[in-house]
Amino acid sequence: MYPKSIQNVIEAFKYLPGIGDKTAERMALHLLNLDKVQTDFLADSIKNLQEKTKRCKICGNFSDDDICFVCSDPTRDKKTLCVVEDPKTIIAIEKLGVYHGIYHVLNGLIATLDGMNPEDIRLDKLINRMQNEKYQELIIAVKPCLEGEMTALYINNVLKDLGINITRLASGIPMGADMEYIDAITLEKAFDNRKKIS
Amino acid sequence: MYPKSIQNVIEAFKYLPGIGDKTAERMALHLLNLDKVQTDFLADSIKNLQEKTKRCKICGNFSDDDICFVCSDPTRDKKTLCVVEDPKTIIAIEKLGVYHGIYHVLNGLIATLDGMNPEDIRLDKLINRMQNEKYQELIIAVKPCLEGEMTALYINNVLKDLGINITRLASGIPMGADMEYIDAITLEKAFDNRKKIS
Repeated sequence: MYPKSIQNVIEAFKYLPGIGDKTAERMALHLLNLDKVQTDFLADSIKNLQEKTKRCKICGNFSDDDICFVCSDPTRDKKTLCVVEDPKTIIAIEKLGVYHGIYHVLNGLIATLDGMNPEDIRLDKLINRMQNEKYQELIIAVKPCLEGEMTALYINNVLKDLGINITRLASGIPMGADMEYIDAITLEKAFDNRKKIS
Repeated sequence: MYPKSIQNVIEAFKYLPGIGDKTAERMALHLLNLDKVQTDFLADSIKNLQEKTKRCKICGNFSDDDICFVCSDPTRDKKTLCVVEDPKTIIAIEKLGVYHGIYHVLNGLIATLDGMNPEDIRLDKLINRMQNEKYQELIIAVKPCLEGEMTALYINNVLKDLGINITRLASGIPMGADMEYIDAITLEKAFDNRKKIS
């Protein structure tokens, strides 16, 4: 019913996650009222996105340049390596400002049932880094789920003979959560990992 | 924290209605995984949107051509004119398939408090059409709210001497609504406009 020019935008918006017919329609009609400068900026940014977004040659983080802002920062602790599933986790950790080491992006987790095997993620590059540089600690910061556990175990298995401290972020009850809504596995983990009040 | 190429897309997505930081971020990262054909289609559609979307020279509806699909349809009843606030209402009515007349888009409603006066919407064009063509009925299909009522009254005032049947869509309790959640004004309207069960 809409003219082709509008229908195209509606269809294209539906590529985006969580955008259905109604929202796509509302967004497309909204664009009609925007300044030409704004719609051009939106269109151009999208057009350039994939081409201009590089991955850091060292850690795999998103980057404008060949080496990302973390790897190129001389004040970072280069002896501590944090393994994450994707660059989004780096952003989340960096926002906190509590971690001063460097990163390694896996680009996925081992999920053998879904056909994601160790060779499908950036594990070979991690092993390379571990063999070529001297690290003190490897912090595995992938999410606590079946795939996360599998990946953490696999990394531990492969690297345990290198004599590096391999750790995993604590899992348990999140701050402020209502006890009755905690799932059974989390609750069990929280019991297993309980700490003496000092 | 994100490279400029991603940050640009995030900022640009925030021009869209209902899109905040988190959603814009999620959508931008999702785009990175799409096919180049898809992101190009999205970018190009947005770029072309404003330029390629015309307004029908007769009724003001969105159109690919100078005259929209309703006005150019010889089977439509050209004696019945339905006045709507925007082209979106036309789409909604056309989806029903119950109306066979033609339309007039106002591009807004009279809202004197917000500085929208009769001369700011396409009322002059409506009056022109009414004077130049012979219509049997003018159906005012703007939404029932203060601005809608003001606009309907104004149109009735200006055109009442032309001897045309001027009607307004019924307002009342929507089908399937729970009585206890109906607002007072709607309920009052529903009482005022009650109909004898035949």
